Amino acid sequence: MKLLEDRIRQDGTVLPGNVLKVDNFLNHQVDPQLMNQLGAEFARRFADAGITKILTVESSGIAPAVMTGLHLNVPVIFARKHKSLTLTDHLYTAKVYSYTKQVNNDISIDRRFLSPEDRVLIIDDFLANGQAVQGLLDIAKTAQIEVAGVGVVIEKRFQKGHKMVTDAGIQLEALASIAAFENNTVTFAED
Amino acid sequence: MKLLEDRIRQDGTVLPGNVLKVDNFLNHQVDPQLMNQLGAEFARRFADAGITKILTVESSGIAPAVMTGLHLNVPVIFARKHKSLTLTDHLYTAKVYSYTKQVNNDISIDRRFLSPEDRVLIIDDFLANGQAVQGLLDIAKTAQIEVAGVGVVIEKRFQKGHKMVTDAGIQLEALASIAAFENNTVTFAED
Repeated sequence: MKLLEDRIRQDGTVLPGNVLKVDNFLNHQVDPQLMNQLGAEFARRFADAGITKILTVESSGIAPAVMTGLHLNVPVIFARKHKSLTLTDHLYTAKVYSYTKQVNNDISIDRRFLSPEDRVLIIDDFLANGQAVQGLLDIAKTAQIEVAGVGVVIEKRFQKGHKMVTDAGIQLEALASIAAFENNTVTFAED
Repeated sequence: MKLLEDRIRQDGTVLPGNVLKVDNFLNHQVDPQLMNQLGAEFARRFADAGITKILTVESSGIAPAVMTGLHLNVPVIFARKHKSLTLTDHLYTAKVYSYTKQVNNDISIDRRFLSPEDRVLIIDDFLANGQAVQGLLDIAKTAQIEVAGVGVVIEKRFQKGHKMVTDAGIQLEALASIAAFENNTVTFAED
């Protein structure tokens, strides 16, 4: 999506360790008009996928997920992050390791919001190692619901999340796909 | 806002201790169409307030804040919650006590996203004791920016947050204002 690639070139910063900082429009300060355009684009790409619900993880996934839900006219569920859970009878939970924060979290979704008839679309801001997406896939498996697609605003294609999702046979749509970082600039994948 | 009051009557649950559970449309599962309508209503009420930015706190404030930002055409900043912070030179921080979770958190906003010319609107899902809003007011004070308004989806008018905001001379708009809980049902304020 050219609009997004241009915005990343203009406003993104590449930090040491292949970290792309986009906190001025995506994950701390948020540009609502851009989120609306991203949501419309996700909705276009998954228009025929029969989506009934969108899943994301708090907090950075919420803005693009809610805009996608607006355009697909389906509810959005954001999984909650916890240190660790004791009483979990009413929750679906999964373990998620954060590479950036180097901590394990549980994520959870209330059981009453998922039913076997659901076909869900997972939306998140970033796909790198794919830990958050994997956690949502784990929850979907436990809840016996079908994951019809994964949509991410930005993917680092060279990290393992991309392969994990496509190897699972799930439609993956990244609105910007980073092929490499070179000399503190971003190279986008061509296709 | 009648639409929202009807939705609370229909889908909300009153739990012991005056807790209103609205996690099926506001703060776990989210109804994007409703969020869009709430955002449009906040935008209407603050149309003449000269807002340049919206502040909220992760996570439940993000959906209504981003929709309000869409309609007011301004950026949204969501403050991050932390256990406690050590390196904070580049951040504005404030302490926030959560009554529901009974923990102290720091919230923070990167300094480069606020400038003295800003006139901000604070948006959040709930106003009860007003701890989160107070934290954002503290940050605004440190950053020397003017708070032109506070918009909350649901307020419990009988708790101290309402008085705290209005006593500070700040325009407060609650889209649903709960006057009391009686026999596990909600009574809304008349005005």
